[in-house]
Amino acid sequence: MPENASYQQIGEIFARYDSFVIMSHVRPDGDAIGSQLALGLALEAAGNRVRMINDDGLPDNLRFLPGSDRIELPPTEPLEDYEVAIALDTATKPRLGEASLNAASKAKVWLNIDHHKSNPRYGDVNHIDSSSPATGEILYKLITALNLPLPDASRDAIYVAVSTDTGSFQYPSTTADTYLMAADLIKRGLDVGKMNSQTYDSHPYRRVELTRALLNTLELTGGGRVAHWELTLATRDSLGLKPEDSEGLIDMIRAIEGVTVALFFEELDGGKIRVSMRSKDPRIDASDVCGQFGGGGHALAAGIRMAGPLAEAKQQVLAAVCAALPGA
Amino acid sequence: MPENASYQQIGEIFARYDSFVIMSHVRPDGDAIGSQLALGLALEAAGNRVRMINDDGLPDNLRFLPGSDRIELPPTEPLEDYEVAIALDTATKPRLGEASLNAASKAKVWLNIDHHKSNPRYGDVNHIDSSSPATGEILYKLITALNLPLPDASRDAIYVAVSTDTGSFQYPSTTADTYLMAADLIKRGLDVGKMNSQTYDSHPYRRVELTRALLNTLELTGGGRVAHWELTLATRDSLGLKPEDSEGLIDMIRAIEGVTVALFFEELDGGKIRVSMRSKDPRIDASDVCGQFGGGGHALAAGIRMAGPLAEAKQQVLAAVCAALPGA
Repeated sequence: MPENASYQQIGEIFARYDSFVIMSHVRPDGDAIGSQLALGLALEAAGNRVRMINDDGLPDNLRFLPGSDRIELPPTEPLEDYEVAIALDTATKPRLGEASLNAASKAKVWLNIDHHKSNPRYGDVNHIDSSSPATGEILYKLITALNLPLPDASRDAIYVAVSTDTGSFQYPSTTADTYLMAADLIKRGLDVGKMNSQTYDSHPYRRVELTRALLNTLELTGGGRVAHWELTLATRDSLGLKPEDSEGLIDMIRAIEGVTVALFFEELDGGKIRVSMRSKDPRIDASDVCGQFGGGGHALAAGIRMAGPLAEAKQQVLAAVCAALPGA
Repeated sequence: MPENASYQQIGEIFARYDSFVIMSHVRPDGDAIGSQLALGLALEAAGNRVRMINDDGLPDNLRFLPGSDRIELPPTEPLEDYEVAIALDTATKPRLGEASLNAASKAKVWLNIDHHKSNPRYGDVNHIDSSSPATGEILYKLITALNLPLPDASRDAIYVAVSTDTGSFQYPSTTADTYLMAADLIKRGLDVGKMNSQTYDSHPYRRVELTRALLNTLELTGGGRVAHWELTLATRDSLGLKPEDSEGLIDMIRAIEGVTVALFFEELDGGKIRVSMRSKDPRIDASDVCGQFGGGGHALAAGIRMAGPLAEAKQQVLAAVCAALPGA
């Protein structure tokens, strides 16, 4: 496995070429889009030609980010005249999506910058730092180390990338450097209240309606150690929900005292069921339990897509979860 | 109105006396209890006698704070042999509560440290810094400026005080200094993941039941700009709620897109109504609106205690809020 490229080595690529296609993973979150904008707008301010593409485009909830209108769906033809492909925050190459991979297929050099430990270093040049809580923080260090321009829009994008990937500076991955970075971004003019308000305080009303609907299905089992709720197609359609509306809601039931596993069951089109699982107990490996049904993920956060109907999927998965509880 | 005492002048009081009663407001939140522990344990580590009292004692949700068992209900007799009374994070003297005021009534010197702009400087020595997002941050600056000891428990208490009073480093009051402080606390050994998990990820089940009950009363008015919900005594009693269970829940409706004012109406024993008000629009000063009913607070977060019944209080306050909307 190749060593990490240093910031200076990455800087040499930035100096040698002047056209960049910047990508991130499908179903992009704040760190994905924020990282694309942070680096893309910095390279552009340094005089380069930049395209920022994502297979799923820009989610509505990140539309407030300055410059976010620059995030495009990939063109159908390969971008012939872009020399460097940069993958950000994307743990495996296929997670970039087929359309993005096709669009970037003529690049001469692949650069891969990420904070996922499992990243197999699929670039020609790689910088994988799993000690960083967000790819946005790696880019902050890269941009400032290289004295690249840091436009206001890059500054804001870095903040949102790191804030969203640390649960607002809460997760164990947050370090002193993370807080020092935030202090520096404020000194560079970041409006912290406005940025957070736009990130966290502006959910569509239907998200609150969804919360209410989910809470009305909440049940505890496994002696109070397992909390689960469900979303039917009928509720999804009646509330006009978008995929990002449910983001993070499972944290509400994960946070219940005594609960060690939280589950979100969701009916999908075509009769499939999506299950999101969160574990608070290191003795319960969510990816193991999900693996029994063909799913996977991390030890504390995993998921499944399985056959329905909902009642049957719930029964099977809840039985597996209860069997995995310590002492069961 | 007397000037702010400097940290050095406060340090002279700490040097001159060796016994301190440390108080904060009734219905204490993270900044109240965190501030008491931060300063109390630092003064104790410096060799002083310290009592930390609160009319409502220690809320369950802050019991994880190291040293929090030192927070006591006030003794019924005045503390004869404690020289200095210190009020922390308490905007008006009566908010300390009658029992605490009685317990501290024999003190020779009153010290008043707070970040509420409206604080009328009721101490003999006052330090009111409304530019600080939390009293805990003032105490961090005071303790480090004076080179007082900073025991681990004080360090943790400062972090929780500031984190809870800034909505996890999100509110506009958060400054570069706030983030620099957090970085320094981590360098001093703070376990940021553990502290946040204990602060935010362990709510009693009844809090989720409360959320469901509140959501089922949610209404929008003022053309979608005002969101409000309510808690009756009947619901409070049937769910066995404790005062801290509702802390922060109002943020859920404050976050609705298009909403600029969020209100929480709550029936209290004895027929009174408590109103919590949050504004997202700088043009709507929540403390002004609450002031019309004898309440007060900050521009973006204020409250009222007023006569019931609930329906009447709601009607009056909602009318005042709607009249305060821009363009109304």
